[in-house]
Order: sequence, then structure tokens, then C-alpha cells
Amino acid sequence: MTSLKSLAKFFPILQWLPSYQKHSFAGDLSASLIVAILLIPQSIAYALLAGLPPQAGIYASILPLVVYAFFASSMVQSVGPMAINAIMTATALAPLAATGSSQYIALAASLALLSGVFLTLLGLFKLGFITQLLSHPVINGFSSGAAILIVLGQIAPLLGVSIQGEHVGQLLLQLMLAIPAMQPFGLVCLGLLWLAGGPLAKRLQHFSHGPLLSKISPLLLMLVITATVYFLNIQTKLIGAFSAGLPRLFWPQLNQTNLAQLWLPAITIGLAGFLQSITIAQSLALKTKRSIDSNQELIGLGAANIAAAASGGFPVSGGFSRTAVNAASGANTPLAGVMTAVWIALAAHWLSDYLALLPLPLLAATIILVALRLIDFDFFLKSWRYDSSDGAAFICTAIAVLALGAMLGIVAGVGLSLLLFLYRSSQPHIAVVGRIAGTEHYRNIRRFTTQTSDHIVAVRIDESLYFGNIAKVQTELIDILNKASNTQHLLLIMSAVNSIDFSAMQAISLLQENLRARHIKIHLAEIKGPVMDHLRRSEILENLDGEVFLSAHLAMQTLSGINEDFSI
Amino acid sequence: MTSLKSLAKFFPILQWLPSYQKHSFAGDLSASLIVAILLIPQSIAYALLAGLPPQAGIYASILPLVVYAFFASSMVQSVGPMAINAIMTATALAPLAATGSSQYIALAASLALLSGVFLTLLGLFKLGFITQLLSHPVINGFSSGAAILIVLGQIAPLLGVSIQGEHVGQLLLQLMLAIPAMQPFGLVCLGLLWLAGGPLAKRLQHFSHGPLLSKISPLLLMLVITATVYFLNIQTKLIGAFSAGLPRLFWPQLNQTNLAQLWLPAITIGLAGFLQSITIAQSLALKTKRSIDSNQELIGLGAANIAAAASGGFPVSGGFSRTAVNAASGANTPLAGVMTAVWIALAAHWLSDYLALLPLPLLAATIILVALRLIDFDFFLKSWRYDSSDGAAFICTAIAVLALGAMLGIVAGVGLSLLLFLYRSSQPHIAVVGRIAGTEHYRNIRRFTTQTSDHIVAVRIDESLYFGNIAKVQTELIDILNKASNTQHLLLIMSAVNSIDFSAMQAISLLQENLRARHIKIHLAEIKGPVMDHLRRSEILENLDGEVFLSAHLAMQTLSGINEDFSI
Repeated sequence: MTSLKSLAKFFPILQWLPSYQKHSFAGDLSASLIVAILLIPQSIAYALLAGLPPQAGIYASILPLVVYAFFASSMVQSVGPMAINAIMTATALAPLAATGSSQYIALAASLALLSGVFLTLLGLFKLGFITQLLSHPVINGFSSGAAILIVLGQIAPLLGVSIQGEHVGQLLLQLMLAIPAMQPFGLVCLGLLWLAGGPLAKRLQHFSHGPLLSKISPLLLMLVITATVYFLNIQTKLIGAFSAGLPRLFWPQLNQTNLAQLWLPAITIGLAGFLQSITIAQSLALKTKRSIDSNQELIGLGAANIAAAASGGFPVSGGFSRTAVNAASGANTPLAGVMTAVWIALAAHWLSDYLALLPLPLLAATIILVALRLIDFDFFLKSWRYDSSDGAAFICTAIAVLALGAMLGIVAGVGLSLLLFLYRSSQPHIAVVGRIAGTEHYRNIRRFTTQTSDHIVAVRIDESLYFGNIAKVQTELIDILNKASNTQHLLLIMSAVNSIDFSAMQAISLLQENLRARHIKIHLAEIKGPVMDHLRRSEILENLDGEVFLSAHLAMQTLSGINEDFSI
Repeated sequence: MTSLKSLAKFFPILQWLPSYQKHSFAGDLSASLIVAILLIPQSIAYALLAGLPPQAGIYASILPLVVYAFFASSMVQSVGPMAINAIMTATALAPLAATGSSQYIALAASLALLSGVFLTLLGLFKLGFITQLLSHPVINGFSSGAAILIVLGQIAPLLGVSIQGEHVGQLLLQLMLAIPAMQPFGLVCLGLLWLAGGPLAKRLQHFSHGPLLSKISPLLLMLVITATVYFLNIQTKLIGAFSAGLPRLFWPQLNQTNLAQLWLPAITIGLAGFLQSITIAQSLALKTKRSIDSNQELIGLGAANIAAAASGGFPVSGGFSRTAVNAASGANTPLAGVMTAVWIALAAHWLSDYLALLPLPLLAATIILVALRLIDFDFFLKSWRYDSSDGAAFICTAIAVLALGAMLGIVAGVGLSLLLFLYRSSQPHIAVVGRIAGTEHYRNIRRFTTQTSDHIVAVRIDESLYFGNIAKVQTELIDILNKASNTQHLLLIMSAVNSIDFSAMQAISLLQENLRARHIKIHLAEIKGPVMDHLRRSEILENLDGEVFLSAHLAMQTLSGINEDFSI
């Protein structure tokens, strides 16, 4: 029974599939169709963005969805190729192989494999908490910066010219040089798609089948444009014929050279993908009274990436907009994802001749529209207004992405997050307290009019003590004592301290040892039960020259001299 | 005036030298002599341990001490070659060049340069707090493991055989094979030195010049042994002639290959050295009512390492025992260090012929005695008894050092510290609270008998909220709400929250948005003034469906229904 339960925890499909309700099916079916319609052109567009042939996008949209369904902790997540993964794949592989070559394709699969193994390991070792250490400003700064890179990169295919570059300077310069050769067709596509997605979709909401129509109107428009190009014989680049059909399974060959080149990109792509996935999954799960297990989600996304690797795809992740469409279109379970995969497999088999007719500028236009929605300037303004350090984190990460490329940009962002985090965590709050006259309450002397003693310094420590913050506490205590030269007693009030680790305990012990030369005794008050249990197992209580008091007030009454009245 | 002050902050020598007191001189002079006597054989021994010629140790004990004096924030720190730095240098350089070759010597200087630049940059950018994030168990586990490696490595020179190996397995195997060739002379030296340092020193304390005699008795013993070997013509390996005199200044040539090979060892050696230095410096400063600026100490140690690089030495640091001797022998200012450097320079000039006669097994014996003192098994037992996770951190780091070598061992230790730190920091404490009947006090419902409401969940948050811990808080809140299905009001009591960053604010806002579907309102109570100022600059107060209350009790009175009595 227990093993079955833990198996069901590892394969959530064993929980939801046996109790699958008939009425869930209609929602799953309609969502699967709408997502498939959205995903087919997107997957091709993202494959091209990653420097891969169109079928790589199709392959990345079949097996990964099926495998994800077995491990998924989210009921409505839609995984597959995403814009940010695609551009990071291109950035990682560009220096290693010729774009589109068979070596390039093999490296993309290896990247997905490594990324998947990394995510799966994080999940298995329950290290999901690590990914929660990225601040929102850094995440948004990263995706905004990457989105600008994507838009800049798509201007060339949109306008029918060919340029390359990894960072903003290169791209802008080459674009300027290519102006004379530009064609207006892509701009028309962009304008029409924008109308279909924005103003038109809003109007459609008022009609009876409006919500459905507004979701598929971009696709209908793409059909119309493609047909127009074909029948009117408009001169523009098309995707062109590509090998259709189902993916063949193979295992990417990893050697030491590959590993050395790909491990860092694999980790960064994995992290970036997981952050996109978990954010939307958690937000949607909240609404439905479910909770997301982030470690299980890591395993699910890891498995999906391994599946992408085995079927000739490239790194996949869950994404904001597609998952939102999936949920809004009625998806109830991961079965919707499995059915999406079926539709895409069928389309790959039957429709590849028609997909080959899609004009490249049209795909560029769809990518640009998706990327523009990722640029969150509003977030920057709000975070800046709230706290300038939050705003600075956003803008620094965005600039790092623009100046160094998406890959180094996320490394810089993670580094910045970590630095902020470490700094923030090493700065605990402590306060010198005094008595509110006539009461047993002790409050911060900076905020309240309090009664203090000449030879007792009472300090309330507001956080649990451990190696990460004890150095700062020690420094502050010494500063406080150096200012109060008559001090004979240092009273530490531990009412807010939930734990003291060995390093912190030793530091307090050492502090007493060193304060002995200055004839200062350290006393403790209001220690919580579990903390006291730990302290009793060490020598600290014998090492302290002072005593342990039940309350701050009791301590003050006992330690204060005859000239000072701390009785009530 | 301000610029002079900031100059004096950067060069602490401008503070203490102008106000140098005549009576400080006697102490500085005596300390400088004793430390020099200690340092001369030690510096040669550590140079050999690092795989370098004897003069490298001498060089590393002259200019670095003088340069350090200009930047030092500690008054009594004694920098120079140390055992752990030496073995880490050997580990880093062994795969890169033949031991003792001119390339090897140049790489050692480059390593000191990079290490010095790294430390200086950390100090200039005020990133000293990073080094406080290593837990004591990890630091002690590292030095204990490295000390075992050192002892094992010195058994061969002690017994006059020659073996090589980076980790325990290799060393033990080769030692077994070399047993027939071993000579007992080194064991005799070890026994005598142990007697002179331990039991004899204790007895000497009772005599009038005892403390001084006990400090220099190991040196006197070394003189006697060396003379005995020379005059009785005992067969054993000697250091042999080495190029004496003062160091010539040169700048190590760095190229891309060097940089790629040396940056990681340089960082780890720098960190390990700084941790040794700062621990003893802080402990001694406490006793003398001074405080150590860890960023200034980074700059001082960084400059000392750059000086070591420029004068043909290898990475230096401050160390526990030598600094303790310096302080105990009367050192008052860094002038003691400058004078130590002068004595060593004189000795290098006049005594090198005599130093060449030192037997290698005798030096091995001195290193073993120093290393044995670093193995802190007692610390392991105490930390294990206090909290098994602290003990586990010690033993894991020690095993990593023994199994992977000192270099990878400290990387593993830092990684482990960081992981523990991140995990620890992402787990804030929150508690569901209820009213102590008849009072206005609200306490943890698990610890007290409390009065609660059926449709209100009151949660006290015990730590400041920011991106690093908000995810965990969110998860716990959802778990709590999922268990209390009648909940209409979620009351967050913020009395212990000193700040809320943008990520955390957004997360609360999102939580409300998602709880709206479940008809749950989020209310806030007891928000501190500065936190409220920030919140007012965002939209959160409008986004919340609930209200902001001055106190938890007021909130409970207002929100509770007619069937529940929360009035007094």
C-alpha cells in the first residue's frame, strides 16, 4: 500500500487517470485541439529560431507532451518548444556547429538530454527550492531582455534579409546595412496578425462563439495569408519541403567534449524553462485548490526534455500563454496534452506539404508578437517605484542579456539573485530594547520612550541564528557594547529565535570568552523550548558567565542595581 | 579632511603609525624576534611542502609582511606561508608542471597573484560578507581533512622514502610498498620535537624565563639536532644549498592558458587563506575592544599575496598558531610584522649556509606536529552531539577533502555550505495563532490552548518576506487553507516582518487574486511603519479584498461572526 502510494506520488498519472471523469473529456478534447492549432505554426517558428529544421519543432511537440503527462504535477501545464528556450539553444550552439547541420541537430538533442537529466536530478534530490531563490525582478528582467533580443533577431527574416548577431550592437549595425534589401510583406503580416490577436479578438468576445473564434483567428489568418501567397504567387521565402512523419527514436551520443561545451547552457536553459513552467503552473493550481509539488514538476519537465532529446527535438518547457490557453479552453487533466500530441503527429503526417508553404516572414511576425508580450516595461516601473533596488535588479539583468546574450545574461541574473539573496540573508534584524515604564513590555529604544539601565544592554534578536547571519549579529553586538562603556551585563532576548546552529552557538560562546576580559557577562532570556534542548547538549550554558532567565523583565529586575527600579 | 579620512580607512597604517607610542615598541620588537625564529624553519618547510625550493618560503615571508602592514585592519595578524596554502598550491600545480621546475615556480607566483587580485576585488567591492557564509563545521572539516592529507604526505620525507599521491588511497598504498626502505631518524626528531613543544614547554612555564624559553625551545632543539647530524655525520637527506639573499622583484606572466588553469585554485586558496586569517583576527580583536573590518582584511591579505607573487613566493595567509604567538609575545601593531620581515631578510642573507644543513626529516617532523594540531576530532564530536546535521557537514567535508584532494574538497565544502545556507534561508517560520482566552494575546495553536474562529485563519509570519522565502510561505499558507475548508478570511499578522520586497508583495497580491475564486479575503494586521510606506507605493492594498488592521485582536473582533465572541 505504501509502495503504491509512493509510486503514485512519483507518477501522478496513477492518481488522476483511474478516477478520470467522463465529463472531463469534452474539456480535454477541445483544449487539445486549440493548443494543437496554436502549437503547429509556433513549433515550426521556434525550431527555425533555434537554427533547426522545421521538423525538430514538430518532434519536440509530440513525445515530450506524452511523457510529461505521466509525471506532471500540474493538471493544465502545456509543454513544448518555447521562444526563450529556442533563442538560448541558438546562442549555445552557434559557436559549436554550422546552423542546421547534422552535427548542430545532434547537439540540440544532446542539450535537451543534459537539460532534462539536470532537471530530473534536481527533482529527485528534492532541490526544487533552489529555483525559488530567483527574484521576480531578475526573472522578468531576463525574459524582457531575451524578448528584445528575439524581436531584433526576427526583424531580418520579417523583412526578407539575412543577418546574424548575438548581441544588440551587432544586430542593429547589420540591420542598418540591410535596409535597401528589405521587403514590406512581413510588415503586412505583422499588422494583420496584431489586429487578429488584439482589437479583433476583443470585438469577437461579444459574439456567441467569440472566445473560440478569437483563439483560432490568428490561425485562420495564417491560412488566408499562406493561400494568398500561394495562389497570387507573391515573391517571398517559404519554409520549403521538410521530412515529415513521426520522429525516429535515437539516443544523442555524448562525449567529453560535448559535455564540457554543453553543461552550462544545459543548466541555464533548464533553469530558464523551469522558471517559466513553475510560475504559470503554480498560479493556475492556486485557482483550483490544488498544490503544485515543484520537485515533481522538475521531474516532469526533466522527463519531457529527455523525451525531446530521444525524438530529435530540442529543449522544451511550459509557457505562460500556451498554458493559459490550455486552461481557458477547458483542459482538466494532462490527457489534453496527450491528445494535443496526437493531433500534432497526425498533422505532421498529413499536412507537411501544406506546412511547407508557410512564408518565413509570416512565422517571423508570429514570433515577434509573442516576444513583444514578454517585454514587461510596466513591471519595471512598478518594481522601481516600490523599491529602487528591485528595479535595479530588473534593469541590470535585462542589460546583461542585451549586452552579453541570453546565455550569459541568465548566468549574470542568477549570480545577481544569489548575491542579493546571500546579502539579504546575512543581515538579520536586532534591536536594543528598553522597558515601557510601568509595564513588563520591552521595546526598541529607537521607536519608544523606554526605561533602560546604565550597566545592562538588553538586545532582542529578531531572527534564528545560524552560520549565515551570526557574523553580522556579532559585529553589531560589539558595536553596541563599544558605545556603552559602563556595560556589565549583555542580555540577549531570544523570543524570536527559532533555532541556533552549532556555528552560532560557538560564536556566542567565543563572544563571552572574549568579553570576559572586559568584565561583561552574557545572559539569555526567553529561550524557546526546542532551542533550549539543543543548548543543553553543548557547553554554552556552562561557558556563559551570566544566567538564563525566563523573561526579559525577570532578567532586568535581577540584574539592575539598587539605584535602578525595575520592579513593578 | 574627508579624503584624508577615507585614505586612512584604506591605509590603516595612517591611523596607527602617527600615534605610535614609544612603549609599544618593546612588545613589537620581542614579538618580531620570536615570530621570525618560528617562521624561518616553517617557511622553508612549507615551501618544500608546496613543491618549491626553500628560498620561495623565505621570499614569501619578507615583502608580504611589509605590504600587509600598510593595509592591515588587524593589529596582531601574522601573515606568511601556511601549511594548508602550501598543500593546496602543490595540489593545484602538480598536474601543470614538473615539481620544482622554473615553470612550476612561475606558476606558484601566478597563483599568488590571482589569489591576491581575487581577495582585493572582494574587499574593494565590499563582498566580505560572502566569506561569512561558510559554516564552522565545514571550515573545520576542511582543515581537519587537509591536515590528515598533510600528515600522510609527510610520512615519506619523515622516514626518508619518496612517494607521491593526491588522495588517501594512493598515499597509503605507496607507503606500504616503501616500508623496507624507511629510516628511523625522522621518528626520533618527531618524538623530541613533540616533547619540546608539549610536556617540556608545560614544565618550563614555572621558571622565570619559562614562557620565552618554551616558545623558542623547538628552535633550540632544531639547532641541536642539525649540529648533531653535521658533526656526527649522520646519514640523512639535507635541504642542501639554495640561492640565498633578497628576493628579486618580477611580475608573473599571465596568459589565457594560465588563467584558465589557475582561476579556480586561486579562488579556493584565497578563500581558505582568508578564512584562517579572519577567524583568528576577529577573535583577538574582540579581546582588545577593536573591531576588524573584514573587507579591509581582504584588501590587506590580497595585497600581501600580490607582494608574494612579485617577489617569487607563493600564496600566503594569516594563521591561527603563529598569530597567537605574535599576540602573546607582545605585538601591538603591524610594525612587529615589518620587523619580522627585516629579521628574516637578514637571516636569508647571513644564515643560508647554515639553513642548508637542516635535515629534511626534521622539517617533515615540524610540519606533522603543526598539522596534527589542525585535526579537530573534538569539534566533530561536539557538533555531532549538538545537532547531527552540523556533525554531518563536518564529516562530509573532511571525507571530500580526503577522497578528492584539498582543492576539490574545499569546492565541495563551499558548495555544501551554500546549499545548507540556501535551504536554511528559504524555510521561514510561520505559525497559525489563536487567542489566549480572555486576553488580547495570540499564540501558536500548537503550543497553547487557544480560542480560534471557524471561518478565520490567523497566521503570524515570523520573518521578513522576500523572494528567497516567499515561495515556501505561499506553499504553507495554501496547505493551511486546504485543511480549513470553511475559511473566508486569511489574516496575516506582520508583527515580525521588517521588510517585504517586490517579489513577496507580488506573491501576496497573486495569492489574493487566486483565492478570490474560493471567496477568501486576505487581511493584514500589525504592519510596521517602514513596511507600510513601501506597500503604499504599490497596488497591493487596493488588490487585497480584505482590510488592514492595527492589531490582530482588532481584526479578530471585526471579522468574527455573531456566534463567536472575540470581545473582552
